[in-house]
Amino acid sequence: MKELKDRIQRDGQILGNGILKVDSFVNHQVDASLMDHCGKEFARRFAHLGATKVLTAEISGIAPALTTALHLGVPVVYARKTKPITMPDQVYLTLAPSHTKGRMVELIISPEFLAHGEKVLIIDDFLATGATILGLVRLAEAAGAHIVGIGALIEKTFEGGRAALKSLGIPVESLAPISSMDGGKIIFNGD
Amino acid sequence: MKELKDRIQRDGQILGNGILKVDSFVNHQVDASLMDHCGKEFARRFAHLGATKVLTAEISGIAPALTTALHLGVPVVYARKTKPITMPDQVYLTLAPSHTKGRMVELIISPEFLAHGEKVLIIDDFLATGATILGLVRLAEAAGAHIVGIGALIEKTFEGGRAALKSLGIPVESLAPISSMDGGKIIFNGD
Repeated sequence: MKELKDRIQRDGQILGNGILKVDSFVNHQVDASLMDHCGKEFARRFAHLGATKVLTAEISGIAPALTTALHLGVPVVYARKTKPITMPDQVYLTLAPSHTKGRMVELIISPEFLAHGEKVLIIDDFLATGATILGLVRLAEAAGAHIVGIGALIEKTFEGGRAALKSLGIPVESLAPISSMDGGKIIFNGD
Repeated sequence: MKELKDRIQRDGQILGNGILKVDSFVNHQVDASLMDHCGKEFARRFAHLGATKVLTAEISGIAPALTTALHLGVPVVYARKTKPITMPDQVYLTLAPSHTKGRMVELIISPEFLAHGEKVLIIDDFLATGATILGLVRLAEAAGAHIVGIGALIEKTFEGGRAALKSLGIPVESLAPISSMDGGKIIFNGD
């Protein structure tokens, strides 16, 4: 998606250790209009799957997941990383490593909002190793839901996430697949 | 706003201790369409203030702040509760009590995204005691930004937040002001 790729080239910052900082338009500060366009593009690419719910992980996944859900006309559920007091005692919980936090984090979903047989589209900001997304897949499977597709704004194709998700046999789409950040230069797939 | 009030009456749950659970449409699971309508309503009420940025706190504020920013055509910044590794060492930080977590939490904003003279509209999910919103006000003031308005989806008018914000002398709007939850019954202002 050209608009997102152009923005990454303009405002993304490579911090080393494979970290791409996009805090000025995706995390921390969010370009609402850009997120809306990304959500519209995800909705276009995934419309044929008949998803009944969008699933993401707090915090950075919320913005693109919300706009995707808006354009698909379905609700969005975000997995919590700490259990709020409003959540029932019995929950779906899994662990996933956080790249930006450098430790394992919990992903928690209330059984109230993920039902057996539901068709779930996972949307997140990054697809890197796929570890967070695989955590969401485990939660959905624990609920007896079906994952029908996976979308990420930005994919770091050199971190192997797509291969890790391959056995699921479902469409995986990223709007800005980055094949290299070597030497401080961002190269997109196909460029 | 009738659509939100009706939804609260239908799906909100009073858990005791003044906690209103709205996890099925605001927190955890989000009704994307409802959030879009709420954002549109905030944008209508605050359009005359000329805000250059929407400010909120992660996590539950993100959805209504994003849709408000979308309808106003400005970016949104969400204060982080933990400092990600992508954030510079020098930050704006304050403490605020979390009602649903039962402890103090940090609110952190990078100076990169809150500039001197900026006109800031604060949007959050709840206005209760006003403590979180006052934390955001302190952060904005530390950056030399001007707060031009404050909006909350749901106000618990009996918790005194509006009085706590009064000295700011700016418009405070809530889309669903609740005057009582006594006896398990939700009463809105003016009903």
